[in-house]
Parts: sequence; structure tokens; C-alpha cells
Amino acid sequence: MSTPLELLSAHACHGGEQRFYRHGSREIGLPMKFTAYLPPQALAGESVPTLIYLAGLTCTEETFPIKAGAQRLAAELGLALIAPDTSPRGANVPGEADAWDFGVGAGFYLDATQAPWSTHWRMESYLLRELLPLAEAELPIDGQRLGLFGHSMGGHGALTLALRHPGRFQSLSAFAPIAAPTRCAWGEKAFSGYLGANRAAWNAHDASELMAAQARAPYPQGILVDQGLADKFLAEQQLHPEAFEAACAGVGQPLTLRRHAGYDHGYYFIQSFMDDHLRHHAQALR
Amino acid sequence: MSTPLELLSAHACHGGEQRFYRHGSREIGLPMKFTAYLPPQALAGESVPTLIYLAGLTCTEETFPIKAGAQRLAAELGLALIAPDTSPRGANVPGEADAWDFGVGAGFYLDATQAPWSTHWRMESYLLRELLPLAEAELPIDGQRLGLFGHSMGGHGALTLALRHPGRFQSLSAFAPIAAPTRCAWGEKAFSGYLGANRAAWNAHDASELMAAQARAPYPQGILVDQGLADKFLAEQQLHPEAFEAACAGVGQPLTLRRHAGYDHGYYFIQSFMDDHLRHHAQALR
Repeated sequence: MSTPLELLSAHACHGGEQRFYRHGSREIGLPMKFTAYLPPQALAGESVPTLIYLAGLTCTEETFPIKAGAQRLAAELGLALIAPDTSPRGANVPGEADAWDFGVGAGFYLDATQAPWSTHWRMESYLLRELLPLAEAELPIDGQRLGLFGHSMGGHGALTLALRHPGRFQSLSAFAPIAAPTRCAWGEKAFSGYLGANRAAWNAHDASELMAAQARAPYPQGILVDQGLADKFLAEQQLHPEAFEAACAGVGQPLTLRRHAGYDHGYYFIQSFMDDHLRHHAQALR
Repeated sequence: MSTPLELLSAHACHGGEQRFYRHGSREIGLPMKFTAYLPPQALAGESVPTLIYLAGLTCTEETFPIKAGAQRLAAELGLALIAPDTSPRGANVPGEADAWDFGVGAGFYLDATQAPWSTHWRMESYLLRELLPLAEAELPIDGQRLGLFGHSMGGHGALTLALRHPGRFQSLSAFAPIAAPTRCAWGEKAFSGYLGANRAAWNAHDASELMAAQARAPYPQGILVDQGLADKFLAEQQLHPEAFEAACAGVGQPLTLRRHAGYDHGYYFIQSFMDDHLRHHAQALR
């Protein structure tokens, strides 16, 4: 069962508060951590629009608040920012930490169907059915005004969860997402392990396949995606933004896909375009 | 002897470039690392005003570029940002890593006079006589327009080095500096180890003592200091901003000392007021 939120620490930041939380998770069956930035408006009692940020491979709930540089403008715009961890930790599944792109730190934001992962690797249910309701109940955030974004594996998570749960999120963006995991090595490894050998089951967790299957544009106000052109994982064919672009075009989904010369895959890239993402969400959630 | 700069990595960031360097240091006698943010103006060929940031206990040259959130506005203002490491590393002095507030990660920005530290712990000479000349020679920075700032131990370093080297830096600020190290436990421990038992030698590395000894205001355009009031090290009497405030008042040095309710000692505090520091320096270096 879920246990109450435990506040591990809180730090004044741009007039708001950067908080670090832990709780026992019913869906994961283990303790989970997440972070929440509350802007000054939330501390003053307002119920504020909120962005959920999903981080990439090897990251934790701390990566976003430390490296992304989002709090300053979030304070100005009155946005709360929630960042969960990227996988269960402490499950002690054999081999869980043998690879940096599978197991610990690599939950891929889905519910595993294959043993031994299916017991704890339930990140989709954790986020949608536990963390969001818990955060809405315990924090001054407006559950009717939620935006979702993320980076790399977390960009995959943002695009797929937003498409798999229509109506739950009102705005969507991504930094260098794994946009077609069924067509890349990271995705093939993760989906084989978590979902099994039947590739038919994979398409339900592939942003480009999900978009292509839409009857009409699910985010008519537009989706924002930024991609660095010096990103080595783009060159290694792990990301495939062009596949998502084609799928959006096919269903009439407005997409702003910006390709940035010289930028790589890391947080110096992300912080460079963070303000644009916050404004994209703030406009939709206003 | 010094060896040429080795560029370890470079990352596009807000139209400029965040770089990580290593070089063999003549003054330290070991390899040293530092980071440099070059704004777009520098990449376009301008010789730009430059801020040197000195970090606190346990930090490295990576702390500032990852956590301080300074690149966005530095790009806009056309400021380069240089952050050195906080001590020699790899000297293998017995006991160098036994404490978090002495030895490795705790160079205190001075030249040790006591064995065994005096061989390698020469951070003042390293910064003034080696790193700055090297950076001026190798990077597009204007050595006539340098600002100095830092945090905690690095705030001590900024205030003391700016007072010990008049004319070298044209602007000065600090976040939660150790402003009177001869009167606090951190300073007593470090100065005893690096400078010996003779307290008379300590005053030359104490910002409040150095300021009190000035004949006239050394920074007539003003010094900016920010201090959080929820800073546990303030409560533990490690920082003593009031001593520096009194010394400035005594010599007519304009000081803007801002005390911020609720803010602690960490980088969520620093990032909250970083823009004000960059603007303070940019105005003086214009």
C-alpha cells in the first residue's frame, strides 16, 4: 500500500520551494522518491498548473531540479514541476544493475509484463494511478491543468503516456525523445526484456506508432520537440525524430520539431531551450 | 611546468559553449581542471569580460556549470565564466582526504606555508599567476575586465583575493562567504594546518581583517553579498557577514549585504540570486 509522503528536504528557490519526497509505493512495491518545485503562487495557497518531467537513462528524481534550470521561469509563470525517479530501486532483481540502459535507472515508463520485471517495473501505473493522484491530494497542484515533458527515455515516456492517456495531460513536449523505440537498439532491448518477444505488443509503447494510429490530432494546440544535431544518439539511430514527425504529419497533429545545430544530448542542451518548453506549456495550461 | 590546455569536452549552451579543460600546473605541481563558459559573443571573436567563480568546500570545477544556472544570462550579457577546482587532487599527502573541510576539496584559495601542504596547496599562486594568464592567452577573454565571485569557502576566496590583489579584478561579489575565517571553526582548522599556529599570519587571508586595514574603499562601485537566513552555517557562526559589514562601514566601502529569509546555504539559494550577481558584475565591467 501507499504510505504518506515523507518530506526529505526543502530548499527556498526563486521565491518558491524545491522539495524532495519519498513514499512507499503500492504499484511498485518499494519506496520511491520524487521531487517537486512549488512556485511562490503555490506557497501562497493557489492551486497551480503543473508539469511532470520524465528523465532519461541513468537519471534520478534529482537530475531535473539540479541540472535543467527550470525553477526561475517556473516561479515567474506560476508552474509547479514534478520529477519522478526513472525506475524502481532496491528490488534486487538478478541483473537489474548490469546495464545502464535496462533495469535500474531504465524503467521506460511502462508496466513490464515479463518476469522477473513485472513485479516491480510498473512505472506507467505508478505515475498515472499513484503518484499523480497522491501529488494532487497532498500538494497545491491543479490536476486539471497538467503538462507532460521529458528527455530521451523520458521524452519517450512523455510522448507515449500522453498518447495512451488522452485527456489526462493538456500539454506535451520533449527534448531529444526516443521517438520510435521499436526501431532502435535501446527500445528493442528494453521492450524485449519488459514486454517479451512479441513485437505486436511493442507498438502500444512507441510514440510514432501510437501517433500514426490516431484518428485525429490528439494535441491540436501543438507538440514541441527539440533535437540537437550534434547528439551522438541521433547519429546512432536511437532517437528517430523523423519517424514521429511523419506520424504527426499523417494525422494532422501540429508539431514544432526544432533541429539545433551544434547541440548534444545533455543538460547543457536542455537548459538552453527550457524556457521555450515552460512557455509552451504555460500557454496551453493558462 | 605548465602544459597546454587539454579540452576534455565542450557542449553548446545558450548559443555559447560550456567547456571542460585540464592542464598540467606549474604552481600546483599536478594536473588541474577548470571549466569555462564562453558566450556567443566570445565564439564570434570578441574579447569578453569574464567572471571567475570560486566554489565551496567539497566542490569541484563542475559544480558551478552544473548547478548555478548562470549560463543563460551570461550569454545574454556577453560574460565568460571560469570556474577552477577547489584544491589540488592526487597529491597523496597523508590525511589529505580525511576531512571534508581540509585538504582535498578545501584549498581555501591560499598558498600553504606549512609542510606537507606547502608543496602542492598553492591555490592563490595557481589562480593569479598561472590560470588567469593561461586563460587570457588561450581564450577570448579580456584580462582588463575581470570580476571575481564565489560561494562559502569560495566567497572567502573571492573577497580575500580581490583585496590582496588590488587592480586585478574590477568587480566583486559573494554568496554566503566565510567572511571572517580567523573567527570561525572552519578557518581556524584550515589556517592552523596551512599557515601554522601564528595567528598574526592569518589576518592576511581574512576578508574582514583585510577590509578593516584598507586606507580607502577598494571597490568604490560597491560589493554585493547575499546571505540566506536559514543557512545552518550562519547559525553555527562559520560565516560572520556582520564582521565584513562592520569592516566595510569602517573604511567607507559601499556594500550591499542582502539577508534573505528562508534561504539555506546550497545551490537553490545561489541560483535564486545568480542573475543579480551577473548584472552587478556586468555593470562594473561594461
